[in-house]
Amino acid sequence: MSLVSRNDELLREPSEALDTRPDLPYARRVRFEAELDLVHAGRMRLPIQAEVLGAPDAPAIVVLGGISASKHLCANTLDQNPGWWESQVGLGRSLDPKQLQLIGIDWLGATGEFDHPLDTADQAQLLAKALDFLGIGKVQAIIGASYGAMVALQFAALFPKRLGHLLVISGAHRSHPFASAWRGLQRRIVKSGIADPDTALSLARQLAMLSYRTPEEFAERFADAPVFVDESLVTPADSYLEACGQRYVRNWSKTAFLRLNESIDAHRVDPKQIRVPTSILAIAEDRLVPIGDLYALAEGLGATSKLHHVRSRFGHDAFLTEHVAVARVLREFIQDAKDC
Amino acid sequence: MSLVSRNDELLREPSEALDTRPDLPYARRVRFEAELDLVHAGRMRLPIQAEVLGAPDAPAIVVLGGISASKHLCANTLDQNPGWWESQVGLGRSLDPKQLQLIGIDWLGATGEFDHPLDTADQAQLLAKALDFLGIGKVQAIIGASYGAMVALQFAALFPKRLGHLLVISGAHRSHPFASAWRGLQRRIVKSGIADPDTALSLARQLAMLSYRTPEEFAERFADAPVFVDESLVTPADSYLEACGQRYVRNWSKTAFLRLNESIDAHRVDPKQIRVPTSILAIAEDRLVPIGDLYALAEGLGATSKLHHVRSRFGHDAFLTEHVAVARVLREFIQDAKDC
Repeated sequence: MSLVSRNDELLREPSEALDTRPDLPYARRVRFEAELDLVHAGRMRLPIQAEVLGAPDAPAIVVLGGISASKHLCANTLDQNPGWWESQVGLGRSLDPKQLQLIGIDWLGATGEFDHPLDTADQAQLLAKALDFLGIGKVQAIIGASYGAMVALQFAALFPKRLGHLLVISGAHRSHPFASAWRGLQRRIVKSGIADPDTALSLARQLAMLSYRTPEEFAERFADAPVFVDESLVTPADSYLEACGQRYVRNWSKTAFLRLNESIDAHRVDPKQIRVPTSILAIAEDRLVPIGDLYALAEGLGATSKLHHVRSRFGHDAFLTEHVAVARVLREFIQDAKDC
Repeated sequence: MSLVSRNDELLREPSEALDTRPDLPYARRVRFEAELDLVHAGRMRLPIQAEVLGAPDAPAIVVLGGISASKHLCANTLDQNPGWWESQVGLGRSLDPKQLQLIGIDWLGATGEFDHPLDTADQAQLLAKALDFLGIGKVQAIIGASYGAMVALQFAALFPKRLGHLLVISGAHRSHPFASAWRGLQRRIVKSGIADPDTALSLARQLAMLSYRTPEEFAERFADAPVFVDESLVTPADSYLEACGQRYVRNWSKTAFLRLNESIDAHRVDPKQIRVPTSILAIAEDRLVPIGDLYALAEGLGATSKLHHVRSRFGHDAFLTEHVAVARVLREFIQDAKDC
């Protein structure tokens, strides 16, 4: 099945010096090239990168985050910077590399070098290549949040025999049309920014932040009266959003933003095609993925399903902020996946 | 009290020819200049325009709409173009110029010539000047929707003896911080649009449309799958939003947009200062003015209050689209205002 030979470039970065830190999990990295049959862009040879935590003989679990996430799940012996899911992944945390082999990947398109229409099915295929390369035929589970949930659903539809269980957090079988309208507008902002693409990208990110968070959170954080500065109104939320936009511009490329953002709106999976036992975590206040879409997914699945729901003023971002509630769901899911 | 003398320019446009259309209400227009003491910009002499429907001896009711609305409430003998509230104002409609004298005004700042910080209290003062000029000491009621509701609340706080009743539709005593964040972002889009200010203004309007409408409406209207055109994704909602943006650019100036938009976020009224009987119409699905803010207004008022609430998939725009439900509330309000 695999098109990748072991002759492809494999990099293991030296980690001996850091192995002396017992508070950090052992990590290895793989980096190679593979041929992918992309939905829109056709056949292309592309680089694939993964980071693997824990022992190779432990049960393998793939962990996928949002479009801004990466292969780096948590600080580890190879990279001591915080990972995108530091609160859940790590020694003693709900996803513990002492008990599990945890696999993260980089999204196709995230570097900004890929500039073609991109589909969540392309990302699922990339994940399959990464597993081939690691010599893993079947994973015990995939845990996907936001964009990662969409890719996990595609993977389950395309490679039903390659995973045992699925945990879907704040992502559905298709994008909601209102969320697509928010993103379409973000893309038009970025494309219009010819004079100053950084400003355009920053504004698009600010709009995205509004779709991730909730009015309830803003009402608590930003209740102070606005002021006029240099004859222009500035509200307390403005400086927060501006900072979010500027931080994003420092780390992201315009092309990566556009192509990944599009791929969310292109996402469509028939729930009936999902034939692995699936748990779903829905956030009641999520405006980007309304809870109704996750009920529809749970009811339409071609497999058993379990639906958790949590209330959070952080809305779509709850998987990054509601540490205790999310940990409870993760532990229960890991237990379910072990038992069957 | 009035700073305006009857020597100021007064225009009554000729309407004899159109008086022959019995299906259209009789209208007159006033246009004059007056000194205003503006909250931020100080003392300025500014033009004021109003349109008055119906007989001068009928009970006077002021009707105020959103920031894009104007003095032109409905097609009439002076101007046969549809008004901004054609569904509610007109012969035989819920606000009937045969029984009422209906007054509309143009917002300060709407022409784009005024480029200073602007407050809803400035608009309330402008309305007071218009009433002075018309020789009306006290109006039976003010009906305000959206921005007009904010101005109506300011008017009630500043000139408590000049009105008998107040109907507030989808507007509160202050802007919600999340709605302010949406608008702050709109202003940053417009200000960033140096290379192409029309594109920037169009994008800001598209963002505003998303804040006026609801996910439920979009889910019904735009469920079709997106397509790739010239290697870029286009969703069904995109062309709708683009059309909204382009139509807006044809009719609005950048300065008018920025100044009126700011004045919404600068708006603050202490509900206790409102001492006239007040009816409120809240839309359960309104994301721009959440129903909780209107409960808070109703509970905080320094006068009797009546709260109606209506469900609508049109959200904030319900006052423009839910003809039957809004007409029922208007008729009840007119009856209440007459009875006391």
